[in-house]
Amino acid sequence: MTLEPKSSFVLNRRHLLGIEGLSYPEITGLLDLADEYVALNRQVEKKRTVLRGRTQVNLFFEASTRTQSSFEIAGKRLGADVMNMSVGSSSIKKGETLIDTAVTLNAMHPDILVVRHGDSGAVALLARKVDCSVINAGDGAHEHPTQALLDALTIRRNKGAIDGLTVAICGDILHSRVARSNIILLNTLGARVRVVAPSTLLPAGIDRFGVEVYRDMREGLRDADIVMMLRLQRERMHGSFVPSVREYFHYYGLDQAKLRFAKRDALVMHPGPMNRGVEIDSSVADGAQSLINEQVEMGVAVRMAALEALARHLPNA
Amino acid sequence: MTLEPKSSFVLNRRHLLGIEGLSYPEITGLLDLADEYVALNRQVEKKRTVLRGRTQVNLFFEASTRTQSSFEIAGKRLGADVMNMSVGSSSIKKGETLIDTAVTLNAMHPDILVVRHGDSGAVALLARKVDCSVINAGDGAHEHPTQALLDALTIRRNKGAIDGLTVAICGDILHSRVARSNIILLNTLGARVRVVAPSTLLPAGIDRFGVEVYRDMREGLRDADIVMMLRLQRERMHGSFVPSVREYFHYYGLDQAKLRFAKRDALVMHPGPMNRGVEIDSSVADGAQSLINEQVEMGVAVRMAALEALARHLPNA
Amino acid sequence: MTLEPKSSFVLNRRHLLGIEGLSYPEITGLLDLADEYVALNRQVEKKRTVLRGRTQVNLFFEASTRTQSSFEIAGKRLGADVMNMSVGSSSIKKGETLIDTAVTLNAMHPDILVVRHGDSGAVALLARKVDCSVINAGDGAHEHPTQALLDALTIRRNKGAIDGLTVAICGDILHSRVARSNIILLNTLGARVRVVAPSTLLPAGIDRFGVEVYRDMREGLRDADIVMMLRLQRERMHGSFVPSVREYFHYYGLDQAKLRFAKRDALVMHPGPMNRGVEIDSSVADGAQSLINEQVEMGVAVRMAALEALARHLPNA
Repeated sequence: MTLEPKSSFVLNRRHLLGIEGLSYPEITGLLDLADEYVALNRQVEKKRTVLRGRTQVNLFFEASTRTQSSFEIAGKRLGADVMNMSVGSSSIKKGETLIDTAVTLNAMHPDILVVRHGDSGAVALLARKVDCSVINAGDGAHEHPTQALLDALTIRRNKGAIDGLTVAICGDILHSRVARSNIILLNTLGARVRVVAPSTLLPAGIDRFGVEVYRDMREGLRDADIVMMLRLQRERMHGSFVPSVREYFHYYGLDQAKLRFAKRDALVMHPGPMNRGVEIDSSVADGAQSLINEQVEMGVAVRMAALEALARHLPNA
Repeated sequence: MTLEPKSSFVLNRRHLLGIEGLSYPEITGLLDLADEYVALNRQVEKKRTVLRGRTQVNLFFEASTRTQSSFEIAGKRLGADVMNMSVGSSSIKKGETLIDTAVTLNAMHPDILVVRHGDSGAVALLARKVDCSVINAGDGAHEHPTQALLDALTIRRNKGAIDGLTVAICGDILHSRVARSNIILLNTLGARVRVVAPSTLLPAGIDRFGVEVYRDMREGLRDADIVMMLRLQRERMHGSFVPSVREYFHYYGLDQAKLRFAKRDALVMHPGPMNRGVEIDSSVADGAQSLINEQVEMGVAVRMAALEALARHLPNA
Repeated sequence: MTLEPKSSFVLNRRHLLGIEGLSYPEITGLLDLADEYVALNRQVEKKRTVLRGRTQVNLFFEASTRTQSSFEIAGKRLGADVMNMSVGSSSIKKGETLIDTAVTLNAMHPDILVVRHGDSGAVALLARKVDCSVINAGDGAHEHPTQALLDALTIRRNKGAIDGLTVAICGDILHSRVARSNIILLNTLGARVRVVAPSTLLPAGIDRFGVEVYRDMREGLRDADIVMMLRLQRERMHGSFVPSVREYFHYYGLDQAKLRFAKRDALVMHPGPMNRGVEIDSSVADGAQSLINEQVEMGVAVRMAALEALARHLPNA
């Protein structure tokens, strides 16, 4: 017998393009539904029927094994017909534009598009051209809402609540959609958010985001409940400032010595894939305080919740 | 509740290799069945069971996001297990021949192979080596039958009938399997077919195909009901004649000025992906007379009809 | 109506990492179950439900159209949600290690991982890091258990039994996981195994594997019941000894003349993809004594049996 989640949470919007604009009850509704999927995913029989007969297309203009796999598993477990499209390799080369790709796909009547794109705002632009639901799976340095949701779920399950926690987000804030989505979500749920980075990896105007800014890891980590490391995105750095890996690790890499400045029961997170020895030391990544694998598990559950909550909003659903 | 199509049309042949040889009732039978799938695809619940337990393999020796996606969605919506194989990237490199690939796949007992290949005749050759049904998804400059069927469905839905219409097929006729399949189908259904192209892009002996040949766009479009533009396949052109894009657009690109020579209610088609500004101007591609997105929608429906009509012919089906 | 296999064979282990260590009843139990799937796969309705709600991930660090397709079809026919991950192209480039990939995937709660890797022992290493079942789909020059099982099934169906047969495995023994798995399996089932190869393509200590070693094809083939050719893996050869194709074919390529040294009713096998004209002549590959296509058919059945026999062992199954 197949168990279905008890939560009947509906996301009363067509798209999930970012954390920005999501209300407190929308975020907690998604997290509650995801919590149920965590339990269901640990069973042998994982198949649900909520997306039966629906077509989900994973449209990735940037390759991402991890995120695409997570969405693919999520959709298939909910019974959807899932199709992967890695663009960049084919039509784009033939000169087809983002909009042509979107409009073409739309004509095939997908129900949900999961889209990743290298440019900030591209997913929202695409969403305006289609009739189906769109989930942003990461657009440039803008947003990656399901990553922030899975991070929040991971924190909430381990700390009981997010309200009142001190969360230090460390590293390459400048190029990070993960940081941006997390800052907005954690602020909405009442956490105290710090960003810790060298000046060159901090976006202009970061202080207006309601965060405390630190340039020193030890100070930034002091008494933190959660230390959230970011991937150093050297592939996005151009021109003069590309930090040397050795120097970066010395000042900003999370090792046991720096971690001791955080609270004793502080927990460590990383969105993956990790650069071991660059932004994080293996002893920390694989240590007792690490939640990194749990984040991946939460990822599938959060994506099932997002897919279901959007699908319930569809007409005739 | 899942609705199934009312049509019980059966294609009494094992393969769909081309439009050539298809009878009038076979073509209209497929179009009628596809018409029902257009309606079903607009519903939320799109899953049918006609191909449940069948294995469909999309075997693409040439990459094509658009056509492969259309067949993948079609097969999945009918309940088939669909597997994509993009060859060229793997076994072929190891020196495996077309026939070895076909015979190997055949031993896995697929029910339907959907095959695209760069060489004219390769799909028919492959079909002779396998026990299952084969659908030609485009072979060299030879045939692309489901494209012609989707074009006919699009025309019929918009004009009520095809008999008596004047259809102008314009551009790179020489390299176009789309043109070839369309000419045969439209002639069978009673349309008056024109081809419009520079001499260098017309195949020798085109006049024997029952078409009127024009070298001037304005003359060729005069009083046409349908203007069907073709993609300029510069990647297939070798040697001396590769037209300059600017010159080509000047003489053969469809813009509003040239379109005015056609009938007032003329409709514009393009098999995609478009080279905007080469064979078609964006104002026309996105204009009120354009059926280009509708063609994509019809594509999924036509492929569902073809898969179903062939499947019904299978033993024990 | 869907028929399910009558055999209720359970593989009382979590992984299938090699033939080494498998008992006689385990091997014959798998072959008996696979025999039933051969019959089921020849029907139109091929869908079973034994893996419904299970997630199967095909994790290929080395490309292999043939083996991956076989596992994909096997899993889908059993009702699993199947996801293909071709690594090497994505995360690995970002510096993610084998173990990180395994641990990440594991967190998504797959039920079965099918893994191919270029390094001997990599699959067993990975299996120790995950909670799910792992099937080795080929690791370096070590093992390829489902290949040996499908070879045994092919032989057993054609010769009635394996006990007492003389099997000559010929060619590039040095680089062949297929040879290694076959030697162990055939010995367990009571065959007399010969290896036939130039000294340079024989691994050190091969004589300890319970095989007779021949360096001359005619001698090695004399009175053999089964001639099992191996692919010449030139891509794995480095340094001084890469044989010329012409010379190799002359001495070790299987043609009609050499085959006449085997028994009159000898049967010819090859794991594919073949190098025609290198290790095997087309007249033999496509001749009446060839079982090569049947091997492919047996491959799907054996993989279904392996997936099912492992799945039955899972908790709550």
